Amino acid sequence: MRAVALGGGHGLHATLTALRRITTDVTAVVTVADDGGSSGRLRRELGLLPPGDLRQALAALAAADDGGARWAEVFQHRFGGTGALTGHAVGNLLLAGLFEVLGDPVAGLDEAARLLGVSGRVLPMSTDPLDIEAEVTGLEPDGGVSRIRGQVAVASTPGQVQRITLHTPGRPGRPPAACPEAVEAVLSADAVFLGPGSWFTSVLPHLLVPELHDALVRTTATKVVILNLIPQPGETAGFSPERHLDVLFEHAPRLRVDAVIADRGSVPTPARLRSAAAALGGRAHLASVAAPGVAGRHDPDALAGCVREALGLESAREGQ
Amino acid sequence: MRAVALGGGHGLHATLTALRRITTDVTAVVTVADDGGSSGRLRRELGLLPPGDLRQALAALAAADDGGARWAEVFQHRFGGTGALTGHAVGNLLLAGLFEVLGDPVAGLDEAARLLGVSGRVLPMSTDPLDIEAEVTGLEPDGGVSRIRGQVAVASTPGQVQRITLHTPGRPGRPPAACPEAVEAVLSADAVFLGPGSWFTSVLPHLLVPELHDALVRTTATKVVILNLIPQPGETAGFSPERHLDVLFEHAPRLRVDAVIADRGSVPTPARLRSAAAALGGRAHLASVAAPGVAGRHDPDALAGCVREALGLESAREGQ
Repeated sequence: MRAVALGGGHGLHATLTALRRITTDVTAVVTVADDGGSSGRLRRELGLLPPGDLRQALAALAAADDGGARWAEVFQHRFGGTGALTGHAVGNLLLAGLFEVLGDPVAGLDEAARLLGVSGRVLPMSTDPLDIEAEVTGLEPDGGVSRIRGQVAVASTPGQVQRITLHTPGRPGRPPAACPEAVEAVLSADAVFLGPGSWFTSVLPHLLVPELHDALVRTTATKVVILNLIPQPGETAGFSPERHLDVLFEHAPRLRVDAVIADRGSVPTPARLRSAAAALGGRAHLASVAAPGVAGRHDPDALAGCVREALGLESAREGQ
Repeated sequence: MRAVALGGGHGLHATLTALRRITTDVTAVVTVADDGGSSGRLRRELGLLPPGDLRQALAALAAADDGGARWAEVFQHRFGGTGALTGHAVGNLLLAGLFEVLGDPVAGLDEAARLLGVSGRVLPMSTDPLDIEAEVTGLEPDGGVSRIRGQVAVASTPGQVQRITLHTPGRPGRPPAACPEAVEAVLSADAVFLGPGSWFTSVLPHLLVPELHDALVRTTATKVVILNLIPQPGETAGFSPERHLDVLFEHAPRLRVDAVIADRGSVPTPARLRSAAAALGGRAHLASVAAPGVAGRHDPDALAGCVREALGLESAREGQ
């Protein structure tokens, strides 16, 4: 089974960790709008794609053998101290070097994937670094709409995010260009996964890259949305599960999905979620997919089981 | 043939590049007293071995196939710009990450060597970062002796370096500890090579690590000194070829060598060099080993040819 997962950060990591239990052919399509932390510093300093979410996806898909595990640990390691390197992940620095030397982020990611023994592939949603801009209410005393720019600012706003747009810095007015290999992966997939993750800053951005949006609408793949376990402080504070689906629809009215996976304990009103899923053309699958004892984290085995159910895969090994 | 080359920087790179034409079993034993550039910044910031000379040695021994050549290029690539990463070599950052994650520089270097397809091995002369201190004359108007600390300061002094000592920062009075694997490599070698390179800061330091010094005295390997093509401004300004051998003897009176390789065009008085080599127990081999058109660089093929002659290897492929 060819699976494609779109997202970023910890949410994408969770999906990839679950999917690798189901199939060896997993392609991650990763957001490139980060402007914070190690990624943001590298992006500003070198003008490259922010590597952090790409690195996380590589680590999630690294081979389970000694070599893969060791290199994944090196990739994820962050320098400490208080100097110029503090907080930089080693894998971010190596990806930046590969991007500069090979002159092509896809070639650099393929080389890093070989090093980590990734059997699938990690691709950026766009080969240009992108900026997120959000329309936010609740910040102005007059009730007006504020515009906030940058992933960190949007993810942490105390206002209510209404919608986002994507911009290519230095090329105002030009729509963001999709990575062609990512478009191809979506079109030839058997199943495509959106979420979980920071909804406005990691999940929805993919829908705002026109060619990727079109591919998601056109693909014959089974389309699955995986909802978050808890609302994210800042960008989705107070959001119900249904509201997550509503904003998805508002950003991509032509998109139809086949299945919506949600944690049973995170859905106060299942009937409402079922009807919101039906409005998108799909069926809600409620199961216990939260990791016990870790707020907000999916249990990979439970999530893999629910994905199998949603895809109609009976045997635990089917689709390998 | 088991070859061991001791040195650092560009000089060691030249020896390694020549030796890999003769044998696939090359171990580099690399100085760890650098305190300048990318290496010095990493050493100060993270308290690790300065990785630059180790990286150069890995690149010199990288496999000639596509994978080895590509990773060697990534290792050698330096970030540009004017930010926090400016001037850092990607390989230095990756080695720093490997040292921190694996907790052992030898394990880190072995992992990097696998990545680059190195068929030999790269080892540090000590697993502690070391400091060079030099006694220098000509700086004081009264003709006295000044003490200068740090590789960069010693390499660029306008005075005359008389002798150097090595120190382990934070452990005053303690002699520098050798890397055990480096001692073992010297003892089990068929041939050991010293030089070319910055004489006081890359070549002689190995003789000041007591266990490494003892191993060099005791080993049954053929011992070969390769002289520089031109005096180095600063530390060996005005040095004749013979003077290089004299300071070697002053720093290691018990060491005997079998052969001294020098470029014919860089030796004004061959008879003097022959007698200086004889004083160390060895024979001078003069040949044209300078690369045409590049001042101070050895031609790898010519140097390999002279090494074969000095070792008594008749066939170009012998010793593989």
